[in-house]
Amino acid sequence: MRRGKSKKMMDNLFARRMAGVQRSFIREILKITEDPDIISFAGGLPNPKLFPVEQISLAAAKVLGDDGENALQYSTTEGYLSLREFVAERYSRKRGVSIHPDEVLLISGSQQGIDLIGKALLDPGDRVVIERPGYLGAIQAFHLFEPEFRSVSLGEEGIDPEQLEQEMRLGTVKIVHTVPNFQNPSGITYSDSRRAEVAGILESTRTMVVEDDPYGELRFMGKNLPSLKKYLNRQVIMLGSFSKIVTPGLRLGWLCAPREIMERIIVAKQAADLHTNTFSQRVVYQYLLDNAVDAHIAAIRKAYKQQRDTMVALLETHAPPEVRFTRPEGGMFLWVTLPDEISAQNLFEEAVREKVAFVPGNAFFVDGGGEHCLRLNFSNTDEEKIETGILRLVEIMKELMAR
Amino acid sequence: MRRGKSKKMMDNLFARRMAGVQRSFIREILKITEDPDIISFAGGLPNPKLFPVEQISLAAAKVLGDDGENALQYSTTEGYLSLREFVAERYSRKRGVSIHPDEVLLISGSQQGIDLIGKALLDPGDRVVIERPGYLGAIQAFHLFEPEFRSVSLGEEGIDPEQLEQEMRLGTVKIVHTVPNFQNPSGITYSDSRRAEVAGILESTRTMVVEDDPYGELRFMGKNLPSLKKYLNRQVIMLGSFSKIVTPGLRLGWLCAPREIMERIIVAKQAADLHTNTFSQRVVYQYLLDNAVDAHIAAIRKAYKQQRDTMVALLETHAPPEVRFTRPEGGMFLWVTLPDEISAQNLFEEAVREKVAFVPGNAFFVDGGGEHCLRLNFSNTDEEKIETGILRLVEIMKELMAR
Repeated sequence: MRRGKSKKMMDNLFARRMAGVQRSFIREILKITEDPDIISFAGGLPNPKLFPVEQISLAAAKVLGDDGENALQYSTTEGYLSLREFVAERYSRKRGVSIHPDEVLLISGSQQGIDLIGKALLDPGDRVVIERPGYLGAIQAFHLFEPEFRSVSLGEEGIDPEQLEQEMRLGTVKIVHTVPNFQNPSGITYSDSRRAEVAGILESTRTMVVEDDPYGELRFMGKNLPSLKKYLNRQVIMLGSFSKIVTPGLRLGWLCAPREIMERIIVAKQAADLHTNTFSQRVVYQYLLDNAVDAHIAAIRKAYKQQRDTMVALLETHAPPEVRFTRPEGGMFLWVTLPDEISAQNLFEEAVREKVAFVPGNAFFVDGGGEHCLRLNFSNTDEEKIETGILRLVEIMKELMAR
Repeated sequence: MRRGKSKKMMDNLFARRMAGVQRSFIREILKITEDPDIISFAGGLPNPKLFPVEQISLAAAKVLGDDGENALQYSTTEGYLSLREFVAERYSRKRGVSIHPDEVLLISGSQQGIDLIGKALLDPGDRVVIERPGYLGAIQAFHLFEPEFRSVSLGEEGIDPEQLEQEMRLGTVKIVHTVPNFQNPSGITYSDSRRAEVAGILESTRTMVVEDDPYGELRFMGKNLPSLKKYLNRQVIMLGSFSKIVTPGLRLGWLCAPREIMERIIVAKQAADLHTNTFSQRVVYQYLLDNAVDAHIAAIRKAYKQQRDTMVALLETHAPPEVRFTRPEGGMFLWVTLPDEISAQNLFEEAVREKVAFVPGNAFFVDGGGEHCLRLNFSNTDEEKIETGILRLVEIMKELMAR
């Protein structure tokens, strides 16, 4: 009786947006994988062996030695100007996209960008298109602004244009969230022509595109493809991150938006946490100034490519022919589709018993699906463990198929 | 014509919660005060001369040398366990409040706590009581969750109990936000008996109290008074910060909440930015481990007390007798009430011309008021500048009164 009453009080206590919300399954899986005996393909972690620890240490010492008082003080909401200039300049040089430093906001990881965009743009019931499967962090962040999610299937060349057109016809779409390069969870990259086609569908609409590109610099093969901003310009908000090219623990990413949108995003950022970590901004800038980051990124690419190649080769050689999987051109993930008779959840349970972990696919769908899919991360495991882990997984797949 | 259409499109673009929202006036003032010739009593900045720059530098080197890969990697949403234990243990030792480390969440400054609480608890129209004048950061953060603000006057001993009772009678109050120690902007501290009285009004209601206490350790005189948690226990969410006792640029604070609330707050934190800066958490913990933080806090208290005493003495000696002001027992701010014939906005405009800045009081009111009040910060200016600045301000007050 008392318990019932207390439960009811709690239900009244929380905001409606929290109804049915649960902790991220992935983050719960990460707790399982803290067991060092487990070979984990579950997380989305970069390989810490590639962190430039010594260079970060030198940068931190220099920043504190030269200008410690300012590096540890409150700072502006917009972020450290020199670092915003670096981001803008790099877009121009590497991607041929022209951005003014005032259109760059430094944020606490690109995940925060999704939250700020939701806060600035979304009213309950607004329609948000996400990829199917989609980035879980975007689903979680947007979910709290109570949108109507519309998911559009991802094919090998990107989001399905017919389904997207259909969604646009059904009513106003406020936001399309896309990870065009080496998507999480699928590893898929939008083709050049699909980018143009998607842009054609969205131009002269009021839809804003969130181009979420944390992995863009981690291309192993093929050539860089144009940002959607090249086609849709002021309709695009770009998110980027230092997590995959420097380190994630410094929680530093950026958001690029046209000024009139930036104005409101800054208000949301001020309310959220005043400004991004001053010290992290200064340390990362010093690191970039004193080191050849392109050479460092090349080293990351080389290592991840080798890990990716090992995983792909093992699956090609050993997995049953009914098992399909993507061949990502970059990034950190590969997406496996099992034959209909095996569920990824069953595979997961058996695999954890054999000390191998991954993320079952249904976590990446807002409207059901993915029961026969799984995400494998290849960035955070060395080749030896990839071999042991994939061979174990393949054995379990075969056993489950034989039942 | 075209411009009008574009404006209309923009209006449709943003969420309803952004209507009428503007950038923080205080943060705009801070831009004025970047001029080094300006004597600024406007900001809420700690004195950077007291930052333990060298010790932070040693801590950073040690953390990166000993465990760099983990210190720069993604980490848990809850935060670094050893630091959560430190926070819990300190509450128990210094405040006699018993908290389990699982009831502590490490966040990106205590400002983020307000945002997360709003997200977890507030539906549009929910009633939120704030102090009058109130903490601007709380007003801004809560505002975006579209509450009905109810402001209750602050007197010399704290929030007005009769007005608070009246608000409680008028309908369910979801949240009471309070800064009981050395309040921002007023400098007022709730008396012991007022704390008990406020607790008596709120107990056996469903109202949650946000006890926002960034300055609690900065007491210059008198004795520490009990946290509202001692009276209201599970009705209280406490916010604390390393910004005023270590440094603000590391953006590190904490939120303490009962477990059933923490569960939802963690979901909101995951969605907002995954987790707090790993490196900052490790560096601050290492700093606390290797240094006598109590001695450091004593040095801050001593310096701020001297600055506060200087400001109070100058006002007592030189300000016209019609000018009233608070005598804060700690913290960083003092609140001045001008005679009715002078507006703080006029004083501000004249003062900026004379290279002195402060924050006019109306910024701290959600429902009008404060036109004759101003906030003076004494933590971020040395005594010589305090003397020059206050004497200039007093001269302008006299001139305005003589007009």
